[in-house]
Order: sequence, then C-alpha cells, then structure tokens
Amino acid sequence: MAQVKLHGFWYSPFTLRVVLTLKLKGIPYENIEEDRFNKSPQLLEYNPVHKKTPVLVHDGKPLCESMIIVEYIDEKWPQYPLLPVDPYERAQARFWVKYADEMIPAVGALFSSSGVEERENSINKIWEHLKVVEQHCFGYEKNIFGGNTINIVDIAFGSAIKFLITIEDIIEVKILDAEKFPHLHSWFNNFKDAPVINENLPDHQKVVAFIKSLLQKSLQSS
Amino acid sequence: MAQVKLHGFWYSPFTLRVVLTLKLKGIPYENIEEDRFNKSPQLLEYNPVHKKTPVLVHDGKPLCESMIIVEYIDEKWPQYPLLPVDPYERAQARFWVKYADEMIPAVGALFSSSGVEERENSINKIWEHLKVVEQHCFGYEKNIFGGNTINIVDIAFGSAIKFLITIEDIIEVKILDAEKFPHLHSWFNNFKDAPVINENLPDHQKVVAFIKSLLQKSLQSS
Repeated sequence: MAQVKLHGFWYSPFTLRVVLTLKLKGIPYENIEEDRFNKSPQLLEYNPVHKKTPVLVHDGKPLCESMIIVEYIDEKWPQYPLLPVDPYERAQARFWVKYADEMIPAVGALFSSSGVEERENSINKIWEHLKVVEQHCFGYEKNIFGGNTINIVDIAFGSAIKFLITIEDIIEVKILDAEKFPHLHSWFNNFKDAPVINENLPDHQKVVAFIKSLLQKSLQSS
Repeated sequence: MAQVKLHGFWYSPFTLRVVLTLKLKGIPYENIEEDRFNKSPQLLEYNPVHKKTPVLVHDGKPLCESMIIVEYIDEKWPQYPLLPVDPYERAQARFWVKYADEMIPAVGALFSSSGVEERENSINKIWEHLKVVEQHCFGYEKNIFGGNTINIVDIAFGSAIKFLITIEDIIEVKILDAEKFPHLHSWFNNFKDAPVINENLPDHQKVVAFIKSLLQKSLQSS
C-alpha cells in the first residue's frame, strides 16, 4: 500500500496545489482520480464535513483543505521548504496565501456568471484582487513570491491564476492583461515555465475543453 | 514605545482572538482602540489591503488577519503553546480553525438579515455548522478542543460562539440550544469560565448594547 495517496480532480486548482507540492518535494504518491458527479465512498468517509477534494491520505490518516495539506507536507517533509523560517515572513506568506484563496471564488463566480452585468461585476472583482497583488507583492525588497525557487505563495497564486487563464479562454475575455498587470503577468510566465511546475501543470487545452463541458452540463441541467 | 501594540475593536470576535492569545501567554501590549467609522491613519497604513482590524504591531512591523496573528504569536512566544506539536494534529487544528472562520460570516448574515425567510435561512446555516462541530469534535479520543488547557481551536470557536450569543440576545432567538447541541453548549460554558478567558471576555450586556446601537445606525443610514 502506498504511504501517500491523493484523492483529487486532475483539472482542479485546489488539487493542483497538492500535486505541485508533492512533486517539488519529490514525494511518491498514488493518485486517485475522483469523479465530481460520483465521489468515492472513501472520499466521503475521509472528508465527511465538506465532501470535497483534495484529500491527502498519509499512513492511512486523511487530511483536507488544500493549503492546510500543503503546510502539513511542508512540516512533514522538510526538503525544498515552501514556507520561510522566520515567523514574521511566515505570517506574511500566510496572509498572501489567504488572499489567493479569496480570489478563487471570484474566478468561479465569473465562470458561472450569466448576463453582461454579472460578468462585468465578476471581472471587476478579479481586477481589484489582481491590482492589489500587482501593487503590494512586487518591487524592491518585497520577497513575497519565491523568486528563484518556488514558495507557498507561488503555489497558492499559481493555481489561482492557472484557473483564471482557463476561464479567460472559455469566455474569450483577457483578464490578466500584460499592460495592466506587468509584474503579475511576467511572474506567472516564469512560474509556469519553472522546472517541475511546467511538467506537472495539466494541459491547458484539455482543461479548457473539460471545464467547457462541465459548464454545458450545468446549463443543461439548470 | 511598547514592543507590542494591538489595533482593534473591543467588541469584535476577531480582535478577541488576539486579545485572548496575548493574555494567555502573558504578553504585555498597548491597546489602541479603533473607531470603525473613522479608522486611524496608522491602521490604514498597516493594513492597506483590507483596512481592517485587528492589526498587531510587533517591533514596528504590522501583522494582519486574526488567526494568522494568533499563529505568529504562538511561534514567536512559545509559552502556553496553542497549536499541537505533531504535524497531523496541527493540520486537524487548522482545519477546525478554518471551519470556525467560515461560521462568523453566517452569524454576521443573521445579524443583518431582514424578513422572516432571510432570518430562518441564516439560522439554518448556523445550525448546519453547529451540528457538524457537535458531531465531529467531541467524544472518545477526539482531542480537537484543548480540554484542560485552551488551544487554538478553543480560541477560534470561542470567539465565534461569543459573537453568536450576542446576536441571540439582540434578535431574541436561542440558537446554541443546550438540548440540540449538548457538547458544544457545555464546552462553551467551560471555555468562558476558564481563568484568563473569563477575565478578558468583554462584558456581555455592554457588547449587546453596542452591537444593537450599530444595527440601529446602519438601519437609519440605509
């Protein structure tokens, strides 16, 4: 039996955080692909509160909530540390991780928005978020992102932005505009091309096609 | 100049988490009471992203987000540890802290709900939350709460439940019912009577009167 198992969705930004963390640290694991319309009894048993992926099972013990899993892995497997050692820098990192977390529902709302006004509101909300990151996370002596190595903030925002550019392609609107957000745009390009990240990001066109099919399914059933 | 300063609202569940943590650890600090309608320039400078309390300033460096501040204090001042040492137990604790965090907006929604249906929806949402805690956090070998000592989950839920019972008194509906939630009800009674906690919880009647006055103000201006 594998020591580490991951229950997840291959296309999910939340699962992606755990995948990238495991890969960066070189931890072998068994991947258990869940079906969002028919989740496994194990998943429901492991996460009875939220019934959601990802769930990491380590030595038979389940862990839930993507960023909590990432911190657990970082504490348990110290190679390639993702959080800074200094408590103040750790708190700063956690602040931005939380901020990235708050961005994903806004992207989800854009994905399921109907009508011009609702879509514009969603885009404005995401822009507000991106503006804050552009303004506060880059520049002289700001070591929020990892720079030459990947850190926990890169993982949190990387998965959120990966989700955002998927939705961009589906709704055919550019949101992470290079002129509006030059630092963030170039940071994401570096992030996605970094070794380990590049090899483990799900294929963009495949994710776009899959998320599109989910959207059509939900429109048909509503 | 004091080494530790806290910008907060005396009646806020979020500020309360930081106050209790500082008091449990015996850390002296300067309290800076903020006015929610006229926040200090320092607060806005310290928390430019959210412009919210609490903000802890330690040696001139600001920290934001209540539970991130609590973890920072726990890492920086190891006396009276609030998080378990074992990474798996830490992850469990963080899971329930996050769950407590998700409960506060539901209580806030109840507070500002208008009309019978909206209020009932809010109450049902809170009940769902309380049911989960009642079901998963108590019983044989479940060490989610601290038991004989206060831990980070006690602080997270304690502040949320303190807020809930304030709102109960304002809207005159019992929500944390002793028959429905026997464990949670008795846990909260023990929590609020524990030394240090008891001395530092804001006076119930004063908070009720103050929150009532806030509600009236917001009704007048809407």
